[in-house]
Amino acid sequence: MAPMGVEKDKKDGVGEDAPKNGDNKKPEEEATTIVTTANLAADELEVIVHPLVLLSTVDHYNRVAKDTRKRVVGVLLGTTWRGRIDITNSFAVPFEEDLKNPLVWYLDHNYLESMFYMFKKINAKERIVGFYSTGPKIKENDLQIDEVFRRFSSAPVFVIIDVRRRWRG
Amino acid sequence: MAPMGVEKDKKDGVGEDAPKNGDNKKPEEEATTIVTTANLAADELEVIVHPLVLLSTVDHYNRVAKDTRKRVVGVLLGTTWRGRIDITNSFAVPFEEDLKNPLVWYLDHNYLESMFYMFKKINAKERIVGFYSTGPKIKENDLQIDEVFRRFSSAPVFVIIDVRRRWRG
Repeated sequence: MAPMGVEKDKKDGVGEDAPKNGDNKKPEEEATTIVTTANLAADELEVIVHPLVLLSTVDHYNRVAKDTRKRVVGVLLGTTWRGRIDITNSFAVPFEEDLKNPLVWYLDHNYLESMFYMFKKINAKERIVGFYSTGPKIKENDLQIDEVFRRFSSAPVFVIIDVRRRWRG
Repeated sequence: MAPMGVEKDKKDGVGEDAPKNGDNKKPEEEATTIVTTANLAADELEVIVHPLVLLSTVDHYNRVAKDTRKRVVGVLLGTTWRGRIDITNSFAVPFEEDLKNPLVWYLDHNYLESMFYMFKKINAKERIVGFYSTGPKIKENDLQIDEVFRRFSSAPVFVIIDVRRRWRG
């Protein structure tokens, strides 16, 4: 499945640098993102995340969830062409979840739709291609969030963007 | 006046690298931005433009006005504290102007207000602190645009972000 694929690929490339029990680590101020390209062998799909998206996501995280165990979620915008997805833009979406019960969560649909409508005025070519979360891990409710995004995209990609600073290297 | 000040300061630091007749030069693909900090001696005001804003502006330009003589205009969001303005975020605004008669222009007020309302939901602390244009020069109608922004900010800053690639250096 595409969303899982991206997440898996990312983990292969990046996750090893971070400790496995990273969830409890306090995110540091100058967080960095590492994901850039994910090659999905199964679908022959190439997903390219442009730098602006990485910077926006770190920014989004620092605004909303810095120094907490919360994650942030947002919309990925871009274009799809011949099995290549270019994620060129993104925007934050109000999102809340119960840390103890991940099946209790809230994503502001109205906000999402209004914001997409606004972005389309600036660039009509960009479509919703998926969503991001700052993870750092995939969660049970990501499948449900994926369902939400299937209203906007037939095969939404899910990219976990790790905003934590790298401990090694 | 603050807006002029920022523009002037930027020119001092950056404008000399670009040819004076730069308007007619074709903007190149990998445009770069150079403005980062403007120190305004007159008002003892410090304006700091964060990297995300520079990247977003180049992106906005490349989407809308690449390979044209047009410029793009957007809103600068941030915080003001003790004479220091931190420009931490921005968004594009639909803007059109007659290249031959700069007094004929259109800026989408409704879009601006809706978008600001949306951004406030994600970060309530950020206010409208001014506006940007990709210039590369100050124009007659910038004073009129400044008037629009005075509805949202008592002293809006105007930052020209030069998206052209540097020819020298």
